[in-house]
Amino acid sequence: MSAGDKGLLVVVSGPSGAGKGTICKRLLETKDGLVASISVTTRKPREGEVDGKNYFFVSREEFMDMVERDGFIEYAEVYGNYYGTPRKFVEENIGKGKDVLLEIDIQGALQVKEKYREGVFVFILPPSMEELKQRITKRGTEDEKEILRRFEAAYREINYVSRYNYFVINDEVERATEKLRSIIIAEKCRVDRFKMKLIGE
Amino acid sequence: MSAGDKGLLVVVSGPSGAGKGTICKRLLETKDGLVASISVTTRKPREGEVDGKNYFFVSREEFMDMVERDGFIEYAEVYGNYYGTPRKFVEENIGKGKDVLLEIDIQGALQVKEKYREGVFVFILPPSMEELKQRITKRGTEDEKEILRRFEAAYREINYVSRYNYFVINDEVERATEKLRSIIIAEKCRVDRFKMKLIGE
Repeated sequence: MSAGDKGLLVVVSGPSGAGKGTICKRLLETKDGLVASISVTTRKPREGEVDGKNYFFVSREEFMDMVERDGFIEYAEVYGNYYGTPRKFVEENIGKGKDVLLEIDIQGALQVKEKYREGVFVFILPPSMEELKQRITKRGTEDEKEILRRFEAAYREINYVSRYNYFVINDEVERATEKLRSIIIAEKCRVDRFKMKLIGE
Repeated sequence: MSAGDKGLLVVVSGPSGAGKGTICKRLLETKDGLVASISVTTRKPREGEVDGKNYFFVSREEFMDMVERDGFIEYAEVYGNYYGTPRKFVEENIGKGKDVLLEIDIQGALQVKEKYREGVFVFILPPSMEELKQRITKRGTEDEKEILRRFEAAYREINYVSRYNYFVINDEVERATEKLRSIIIAEKCRVDRFKMKLIGE
């Protein structure tokens, strides 16, 4: 008796500035059997970026062809470039028993949820709004208007936590990473998930 | 924002011989903020047993008085002695933010579930029925008829897993303990539990 034959799709999301990137990076370093989902993009590679590692770089035509063949579990246009999560990469890894970690913005996560209800949806929260403001400000790459815009967006976005299965407050990276790791281990022990598997097969 | 103010009631159960006692002992040694529930009993103390540590030892009259005052979240008679889980101990610790670990047989766990739906119910499974048989046999304290009876009971009891939230296969003590620890950590990150708290207060 084991529900661990197939891997899990773990979707980590949250407002900009909550620190989800740092937590995901740390988790990938320390959790066995976990792979990061690699996005497909029409954006040009930046210096040092490797095809098949940072992204799968494709032309706009190839991207649209994948969209038509339902090749993405979510995709979006950002500043004129397309980004998508390839279905094949996710399903192949899950089929092999690997867990796939998908770090994504909230709109993307909600798209994924429509197609993968069996995914595990985790919302990363900043310890407080003041802290969030500081984190957004500290990046130092945006002007004041951009900072304010992002802060307001983050504030609105926090309400989406109710659509997720889990929330993790990022008060300290190691602690938050430990929580995310525990969520993955615990999900594999859920009786509901095991029942779903019995019905599904 | 925190759902961690109140502690959790963690109910660990499963068939005889699955090894739940060993896992609970190991978890109590390694998990902060976790206390074992102490049962009330009418049985006489055995040598070395300390009142308020191993059990709360009471008279039959005191026990029945507690039953009348709804002082137990479950109780049962076993071989002429009464055993019960005192509500006060559980609620006081949970109220202080401590998690309470209750190791109990399946009938007891189902009684608790009727009163504490917000509890976390974990079913410990032996790695296989053959292994279970060996564990029951190895105890060496029962005669053959008793062994067979317990094995048959354990086999029937395994079906109760569907009434629980989680299952943990006890293939290896450290691994099983890690799973149980992860379940407790993950439960505190559940959005549903946080919502429940908002409605409850």
